[in-house]
Amino acid sequence: MRALHAAMPHEDIVYFGDTARLPYGSKSPATVTTFVRQIIAYLRSHGPKHVVIACNTATALALPSLRTEFADLSISGVIEPGARVAVEAGGAKEHPCIGIIATEATVRSRAYERAIHRRRHYARVLLRPTPLLVPIIEEGRDARDPLVRLALEQYLQPLIEREMDVLLLGCTHYPLLKGLIATIVGENVRVIDSAEACAQDVQRRLMSAGLLRGGKPVPGALHCFVTDDSPRFARLASHFLGFEIAAPTWVSPDELYGMPAPQPLRQAI
Amino acid sequence: MRALHAAMPHEDIVYFGDTARLPYGSKSPATVTTFVRQIIAYLRSHGPKHVVIACNTATALALPSLRTEFADLSISGVIEPGARVAVEAGGAKEHPCIGIIATEATVRSRAYERAIHRRRHYARVLLRPTPLLVPIIEEGRDARDPLVRLALEQYLQPLIEREMDVLLLGCTHYPLLKGLIATIVGENVRVIDSAEACAQDVQRRLMSAGLLRGGKPVPGALHCFVTDDSPRFARLASHFLGFEIAAPTWVSPDELYGMPAPQPLRQAI
Repeated sequence: MRALHAAMPHEDIVYFGDTARLPYGSKSPATVTTFVRQIIAYLRSHGPKHVVIACNTATALALPSLRTEFADLSISGVIEPGARVAVEAGGAKEHPCIGIIATEATVRSRAYERAIHRRRHYARVLLRPTPLLVPIIEEGRDARDPLVRLALEQYLQPLIEREMDVLLLGCTHYPLLKGLIATIVGENVRVIDSAEACAQDVQRRLMSAGLLRGGKPVPGALHCFVTDDSPRFARLASHFLGFEIAAPTWVSPDELYGMPAPQPLRQAI
Repeated sequence: MRALHAAMPHEDIVYFGDTARLPYGSKSPATVTTFVRQIIAYLRSHGPKHVVIACNTATALALPSLRTEFADLSISGVIEPGARVAVEAGGAKEHPCIGIIATEATVRSRAYERAIHRRRHYARVLLRPTPLLVPIIEEGRDARDPLVRLALEQYLQPLIEREMDVLLLGCTHYPLLKGLIATIVGENVRVIDSAEACAQDVQRRLMSAGLLRGGKPVPGALHCFVTDDSPRFARLASHFLGFEIAAPTWVSPDELYGMPAPQPLRQAI
């Protein structure tokens, strides 16, 4: 949301956080796909011109099948933009070594491996599940905390030993620790995240469909929906966004179970 | 489940793990109550003679209201047995100091404070949310891991400084780290968990209702249901139980939304 708003400040953005059922990173493809299907069905009632699955786990596990099911919607994710920017960061090397840290479910899906190997057949891809990082960040811990440093050192050591060229942060939470991660892996490793690449990808899709709002002097509206009405969300939202945001609207998971199923209507942009 | 099976080996036990929507410890009372209501409605179809909410967060947030709603069922939790054993461990002191580590939601509910103060009006109760411990244990880390020791030292230091007499492990995951916790707090602090007290409480309830199976030479059957069909569960289940268990049966969250609402029929035992 921060990257999308920075790239396209005039667009209205509706953010949906499934706070009642998070985290997704330890769950199965069937469960995550069911949850994301409900959320997209809900978002569709807002008439979006585009839907971004702004979560690596949900993209890895659910995007391919939901793109087929919701053929009337334009939907994109974060894996393809992330893989593109990782391969670019690998430079001209024929065998760049790309490390990726992500949730257990994202790693197990092998979605990043496939997306990278389509672009650079001989890239070496090192995948490492780092399940503690999301709870560490959600607890509000930051780079000054010795436990954060220890967790990162433990997770990154095997990747550092194998001399990676690039480290891709394969979870939308991890950029909050980007500075410390860069310090630990050293200056020979380029640390990248997919947020900006994802925002550019969305901008390009809207532009080629002639749907981009241009030149409007009014900033776009930002609205958040959440499935659990917990005090945690507001605290974390401003931490991620870097600015304060209006209180989220609560949507009960019950309401999600009542949403109509996907009904393919027209071709996606 | 381990403690119940140890105390009453002839009883059949049906265990329900809401793996699609866990963890509960960071979520709101409304969300947790909705989830637990669905699960109890599901379990009722198995005709249980008793239902245990074997989770501190769910007990703290949902037991009082669900006991009223499901007036036809006998339901108990883990907070009251835990508070009882904590007060007993405080000995004859008029002002025992009882430390409790638990999830954010359990701490916020103040359920333990109320349960302890009903028994020992002048007890000092120190509550500390320890949200990383569940993900640390679920990742399979153990007491030999320096990160586990660091996390425990950070969380326990403020309690140690205030000279507690008793430390209650207020989450059903934490007993897996009991040995290390006891080492860190030192021999002057009694470290206790509610599992055995909870099992004794259930046994007493069944006995006084004349429902306890006795003298039967056949061991009781153990059956697990889960809402997410993930490989994580089997690994963790044997870790918690100390023995292997048959594969769990998958119940989709969709199915839970179709369960009939509570219908009070007869008085609880």
